Amino acid sequence: MQLDNVYSLVKSDLLKVEEQFRLLVENHKNVFPELHSMLKQVLVGGKVLRPTLNLLSGKFYEYDIGSLLPMATASELLHIATLVHDDAIDKADMRRGRETINKIWGLERAVILGDFLFARAGELAADTGNLRAVRLFAQTLGTISHAELRQGFSAFRLEQSYDDYIERIAGKTAALFAMATESGAVLSKAPEKVIQALKDYGYNLGVAFQIVDDILDFVSTEAEMGKPVGSDLSQGTVTLPSLLLMQRYPDDNPVKRLFNGKGDKKQNIEQAIEMVSNSGFIDKSYEIAEDYKGKACRKLELLPDNPARRSLFALADYVVQRKK
Amino acid sequence: MQLDNVYSLVKSDLLKVEEQFRLLVENHKNVFPELHSMLKQVLVGGKVLRPTLNLLSGKFYEYDIGSLLPMATASELLHIATLVHDDAIDKADMRRGRETINKIWGLERAVILGDFLFARAGELAADTGNLRAVRLFAQTLGTISHAELRQGFSAFRLEQSYDDYIERIAGKTAALFAMATESGAVLSKAPEKVIQALKDYGYNLGVAFQIVDDILDFVSTEAEMGKPVGSDLSQGTVTLPSLLLMQRYPDDNPVKRLFNGKGDKKQNIEQAIEMVSNSGFIDKSYEIAEDYKGKACRKLELLPDNPARRSLFALADYVVQRKK
Repeated sequence: MQLDNVYSLVKSDLLKVEEQFRLLVENHKNVFPELHSMLKQVLVGGKVLRPTLNLLSGKFYEYDIGSLLPMATASELLHIATLVHDDAIDKADMRRGRETINKIWGLERAVILGDFLFARAGELAADTGNLRAVRLFAQTLGTISHAELRQGFSAFRLEQSYDDYIERIAGKTAALFAMATESGAVLSKAPEKVIQALKDYGYNLGVAFQIVDDILDFVSTEAEMGKPVGSDLSQGTVTLPSLLLMQRYPDDNPVKRLFNGKGDKKQNIEQAIEMVSNSGFIDKSYEIAEDYKGKACRKLELLPDNPARRSLFALADYVVQRKK
Repeated sequence: MQLDNVYSLVKSDLLKVEEQFRLLVENHKNVFPELHSMLKQVLVGGKVLRPTLNLLSGKFYEYDIGSLLPMATASELLHIATLVHDDAIDKADMRRGRETINKIWGLERAVILGDFLFARAGELAADTGNLRAVRLFAQTLGTISHAELRQGFSAFRLEQSYDDYIERIAGKTAALFAMATESGAVLSKAPEKVIQALKDYGYNLGVAFQIVDDILDFVSTEAEMGKPVGSDLSQGTVTLPSLLLMQRYPDDNPVKRLFNGKGDKKQNIEQAIEMVSNSGFIDKSYEIAEDYKGKACRKLELLPDNPARRSLFALADYVVQRKK
């Protein structure tokens, strides 16, 4: 599965999104060199999945790059802003194979840089000239931060259910995927049922994406991920594989010991990774991700068969097959 | 000078702003008690100056509470969100006489709560149904975070000019005052020159307000301010009184010693407070604040003489006369 197939239809417009990023970085080059350096550090090397979802979702009715370009750019900037804050909070050193803002410039700067990126993203959302898109943007930031707060308050807590987990990743990840697809449809003046179908596609795909992300945190390597594996557990975050582990061995398991502060932290994490990897928990997690991918794809069946729909199907394949 | 005179004309609508806050707090009471407690901690006890500016600025043409109410609420929420992040970054324990979010719940939660408040504020801005107001909102958040980044990068640096200082406080404080007045005028369908006059009033008043804030950090008491005095210097932030001190005694002064890490930190701060308080630097700072207040008031002369204009004049008096 090559991402190139997914991108090809909107490739030239994705280059315009990257050009927007380049301009944002260059804008501050002479007047505020520190800000320039920080922006340069974070505005490169992403998979631009959210802009891709936004642009492809705009391909079913009146494709209007004038409003889609700012929205596509806003969706990626919003994503990056939340990563900057997440990494600051988690004291993470690496992201996408590069040092984080907080690692280089400290937590304080990372907080304010994130705010600056939220603001720029908000301005771009306003540049669509579409109030529904703007409202969606603000609601999505609210949903994401609400979910992050939930995650924070449930860290190192053992009493978490499957529903809690899905609700959390829906807020943390699927909301933004859904914003990208819904707003793409809105800006192309799609009828309401098409908007709803693309929104549902984005939501379910986002859940599948995050489940795979959480799987990769157990089975990938630091080189592939660009960040350490096992980082969720070390932050006290329960994800699907560790949830399945705890459900199978409720009385004693390395996650329970880790959260209760019993035994060596590193050893508990290593043991959890090993148990998860050598059990059926990874397969089971992939099954659930496939279920969500299936739900996403069924929503596409409402749409006319065109190259954009085929790209969205290909994107769904990529999301569950990706290795990083 | 009583704030009551300033508020009286918009008192009933300010109560509606407070009702919006109450609803926001109550919304989360049962479903997310920790968020409820955090919101309760920050959404009380402010002077609601920004909503007042917004509502009064809407009183010159078609006063439309339907769009002014969300904007007035958004302006205060945006202010509070930035305070939550500022306090987290500064590791401040107290604000408005109450413990800060970071003091009670830790820095991580404070960062995400701030994001959540930005989002809610953005949604409210979108609720105005006015794209110009939304864009202004996003631009203002950008200006504030840009200025905060500048402040961060210039902390503990001695080579700062008067112009740097004004630029910094313009971004940090005056931009939001100007947003409140400009958007109030925009939402009441005022003609462009009235919008500009009210924007300029807000801007200049904001600069005066911040200069007085910076003065009070030297001459007030912890009881009056609800936070420790001398906190700017301990954060490495140069404000007008300390700038004047450094200009008068460029070779040796307690600020220079403090920033260069020479001598006892607490002693340097105490000496700086004493030198500033017993010199003409406070009077000189007040003179400059009065200049900005004068500029603000001259902008009002373009407007028809009505109760709203008289309230804005009274607000300008309050801003330079206040003791907390």
